[in-house]
Amino acid sequence: MADFMSREDLDFLLYEWLDVAALTERPRFAEHSRETFDAVLDLSHDMAAKLFAPHNKKSDQTEPQIGPDGKVVLLDEVATAVRAFAEAGLNAGSFDEELGGMQLPHTVSRASMVNFQAANAATSSYGFLTVGNANLLAKYGSPEQIDTWVRPMLEGRFSGTMCLSEPQAGSSLADITTRALPNGDGTYAITGTKMWISAGDHEITENIVHLVLAKAPGGGPGTKGISLFVVPKFLTDGTRNDVALVGLNHKMGNRGTTNTLLNFGDGTFGVDGVDGAVGYLVGEEHHGLRYMFNMMNEARIGVGFLATALGYAGYLQSVEYAKTREQGRPIDVKGPDVAPVPIIEHADVKRMLLAQKAYAEGALALGLYASRLVDEETTAPDEADRARAHTLLEVLTPIVKSWPSQWCLEANSLAIQVHGGYGYTREFDVEQYYRDNRLNPIHEGAHGIHGLDLLGRKVIMDSGAGFAVLADAIGATVARAAAAGGEAATYSEALATALARLAEVTATAWASGDPAVALANATAYLEAAGHIVVAWMWLEQLLAVGDREGAFFSGKRAAARYFFIYELPKTGPQLDLIASCDRTTLDADPSWF
Amino acid sequence: MADFMSREDLDFLLYEWLDVAALTERPRFAEHSRETFDAVLDLSHDMAAKLFAPHNKKSDQTEPQIGPDGKVVLLDEVATAVRAFAEAGLNAGSFDEELGGMQLPHTVSRASMVNFQAANAATSSYGFLTVGNANLLAKYGSPEQIDTWVRPMLEGRFSGTMCLSEPQAGSSLADITTRALPNGDGTYAITGTKMWISAGDHEITENIVHLVLAKAPGGGPGTKGISLFVVPKFLTDGTRNDVALVGLNHKMGNRGTTNTLLNFGDGTFGVDGVDGAVGYLVGEEHHGLRYMFNMMNEARIGVGFLATALGYAGYLQSVEYAKTREQGRPIDVKGPDVAPVPIIEHADVKRMLLAQKAYAEGALALGLYASRLVDEETTAPDEADRARAHTLLEVLTPIVKSWPSQWCLEANSLAIQVHGGYGYTREFDVEQYYRDNRLNPIHEGAHGIHGLDLLGRKVIMDSGAGFAVLADAIGATVARAAAAGGEAATYSEALATALARLAEVTATAWASGDPAVALANATAYLEAAGHIVVAWMWLEQLLAVGDREGAFFSGKRAAARYFFIYELPKTGPQLDLIASCDRTTLDADPSWF
Repeated sequence: MADFMSREDLDFLLYEWLDVAALTERPRFAEHSRETFDAVLDLSHDMAAKLFAPHNKKSDQTEPQIGPDGKVVLLDEVATAVRAFAEAGLNAGSFDEELGGMQLPHTVSRASMVNFQAANAATSSYGFLTVGNANLLAKYGSPEQIDTWVRPMLEGRFSGTMCLSEPQAGSSLADITTRALPNGDGTYAITGTKMWISAGDHEITENIVHLVLAKAPGGGPGTKGISLFVVPKFLTDGTRNDVALVGLNHKMGNRGTTNTLLNFGDGTFGVDGVDGAVGYLVGEEHHGLRYMFNMMNEARIGVGFLATALGYAGYLQSVEYAKTREQGRPIDVKGPDVAPVPIIEHADVKRMLLAQKAYAEGALALGLYASRLVDEETTAPDEADRARAHTLLEVLTPIVKSWPSQWCLEANSLAIQVHGGYGYTREFDVEQYYRDNRLNPIHEGAHGIHGLDLLGRKVIMDSGAGFAVLADAIGATVARAAAAGGEAATYSEALATALARLAEVTATAWASGDPAVALANATAYLEAAGHIVVAWMWLEQLLAVGDREGAFFSGKRAAARYFFIYELPKTGPQLDLIASCDRTTLDADPSWF
Repeated sequence: MADFMSREDLDFLLYEWLDVAALTERPRFAEHSRETFDAVLDLSHDMAAKLFAPHNKKSDQTEPQIGPDGKVVLLDEVATAVRAFAEAGLNAGSFDEELGGMQLPHTVSRASMVNFQAANAATSSYGFLTVGNANLLAKYGSPEQIDTWVRPMLEGRFSGTMCLSEPQAGSSLADITTRALPNGDGTYAITGTKMWISAGDHEITENIVHLVLAKAPGGGPGTKGISLFVVPKFLTDGTRNDVALVGLNHKMGNRGTTNTLLNFGDGTFGVDGVDGAVGYLVGEEHHGLRYMFNMMNEARIGVGFLATALGYAGYLQSVEYAKTREQGRPIDVKGPDVAPVPIIEHADVKRMLLAQKAYAEGALALGLYASRLVDEETTAPDEADRARAHTLLEVLTPIVKSWPSQWCLEANSLAIQVHGGYGYTREFDVEQYYRDNRLNPIHEGAHGIHGLDLLGRKVIMDSGAGFAVLADAIGATVARAAAAGGEAATYSEALATALARLAEVTATAWASGDPAVALANATAYLEAAGHIVVAWMWLEQLLAVGDREGAFFSGKRAAARYFFIYELPKTGPQLDLIASCDRTTLDADPSWF
């Protein structure tokens, strides 16, 4: 059976490219060594293989249900896996030792997590959401909140969610209507309905810690009025809080992750003397969105990894299928006397495998690079390095989320195609990966939203400092590649040209000063910038490969070549389009549809 | 509720663009008039809405099963719909009056059928397969076979299948192992296993007529040895023939179409004195593949329509959703005091709708254009016109099948995206369309196979006559558009340039004379040629629109503009790639994956 993640690739990226071992020289990671990192990676793959992968298909085929007692019924295997993950200390992987954490570098934590995501995307999300929630609270919660909610989450006794969307407001948080009214004792009464809440109800943990965006009085209109609250399923004295499961969403994929519609304060589990669910304010009133963005940025990188993991698993499965399935003959030696060959011998099958490899390994490199920036942002000795990492991460985040969501989904489509009719059946796993992955361009900011974020905010922030730091980083790689000569030098020219063009069209898009015109083609901008950034990741990998021989390194070279020859040129027409400030979409009248 | 097909668009394409009414001047269609065509289209939409659409979701959620008696259990609604379709005479729509047919032009028949395909892709396939089977037998079968099998199929008493693939041989028919041994009485004993047989077993009709490819002795190796047989589920005397249902395939989508693994001659229903299933030779021995290609070409156009229909239905649903779902504000007037607008006001949503419109309506135009060529091929008064139509149809067929399969699937992905999280749930229909449509790049020749067919055979056949007739046809439109001035003239230049480039790279690809090199990038060739052909279809539509006003015509102009500005330029890098004769995929070693 095919593996779901390549340890050889992770080792190459972590140790040979990103030099994660060097992080152990920093005080925060001083207790660590390559050996401890390896142990975490070994454990993660092993546990993912034994406790996550085996029920991946079963949890797709046995959707969460609401039982007669109103409780969510999940496969037992889900709870077993989620608990084992927490018990192994992985909820707390990158948390402070003081909180019971392992104080792992963020990069290593993500590399650990991607194993679980590849083995079973749906089940991995329970731990993933808990970690994100705990991270936010550890940063912005009071010491009491940390003791009450974060510690049990890291221990695995509690789990966490993020409650942002409402039925009428997903992309537009300004329109949320969930209310928070002070109860006079420091707590708040929360009333409203939240939609699309993953892991919103289940019996895996003793308690569920909801982080809820709601509007408290006096905050002014729009997003300014939003505050953040902890609203637990059970209060600390064991009382059931008024958080009611209204229904489960039935999805195309990602079915094993319970996805819920929750009512807060509808009286189902009314708490004496409180006209709503009991909520505890996090930080200050009216700053909730800022805190939540901390979690959302982390979640966005995590979604990028989720998409990557599915792309990667599908790639490995289709490689195995292509190596064992015999059909057809080499194109130049047709005829019945020639024995059929494994389909991996056909150029078009190799195209589909190279594309998947370029997408999945390119996305993995991008995600780990971004994770390394998180480590830089928080632990680089030099303040300027931390600031630089912060800015670069801000610029890259929309791409780190969106690019894998788009292209690793395409990888899954190619994985189906390699399998032919078999890939379209539930006998194989690739159709599930394709369904699971289709979620990723939708949640944590829909695809188009990230285009607006990138072109409308990130590249122009601080008078273009965002773009400048990205250009500098890519420029440094281009210079190294040019000096390296050979193939790397050839590609460095292509990348430099594309980057220069991106700078140019960024200015052209904004030349009119009218945001409606500038952003009309923001999605094309996101996609072009994404391809340029991933070309950069491939050039980086090519440099890390150097002139070493062997199948692994030859494969890396071939994927880099594929990306530069087959993929990067796709940005040409996109950049031309942005430069033209075309108004076709902007000017289309709704009546024409 | 959104409609699934636009009659206004069909009328525009059929009457204003393709001038189908002019066909009534030909002897074969002399009994017809626009009124009779309209009556068929009215009936088709009405029946599709009443008997097909209502169980589309239900048949996805209630998969065919094998009952305790070994019979296939389907929803009653499927049988009702399939029978009503036949009883309305639609199995026989374009057949000779002598066979009980309506002698409709092929173009009108396809326009009728696309309504059923859009309303319920899975249920439409039963009639679709029967028609294809009957068409082949009507052409190549003996008079007795026509009486015995074709007439009952057209009446709806029998249904038909095509049995080509085997578990070990899908794309490579040379490798089929099903055998046909003469029984001495003119019949054959058929033994073997056929895979992926749609509508392969069910109780909708009294009998099922399988058209089976098998190898009879003395045919030589490879595809040359293939003969074609009628193998009915029941012999004419009512005896059960030895065709056994081994299993059903469980698919990601298109679930309502029973898809089967069939054993021929395994003894389950052994017929006395015959060592296999009883088969009747169609035409001559060893010419089976040629006959089957007749049906396959028809089926390929039909698959193009199936993909188109799903793209179209998803487009219409997402338009309705975008017009009614309110969220967000115009980008230049943000703020809470401004009321949320329907999301169709946002440029990026309009982009997703224009793309869908350009794909779905472009694909529909392409399919109807190809169908019009079938009418030309068979009924044009002038022999040269018939020959020209035949050649052009040969060249276009791989594109007519593949382009909608690729881009109307993309349209369905965009339809999901417009719906946001809701689109990912089974509460709406678009996720099903996306799953259903993913089949189309796989069956009736996988995507890559059509690239080989187009670049390896069609454009070079008869010393390039295939390409020449396509270039002439496009050239004629370019000339008319140039003369028309305005936007059409602008786009005519872009199309002429792209066409010239396509001609150039066709020659470059074949310059080495080595098919392995020439065809290494055949898929890119297929996709570039497809985009150029659909740009041609949009220029044709733009000319048919002229300067007329009104939302419908403005919408057509906007979609044409979208295609020329956003889509056609994508061919640039593809054509560059083909011109480079790049060997990246060809030279990739299997060990590198």
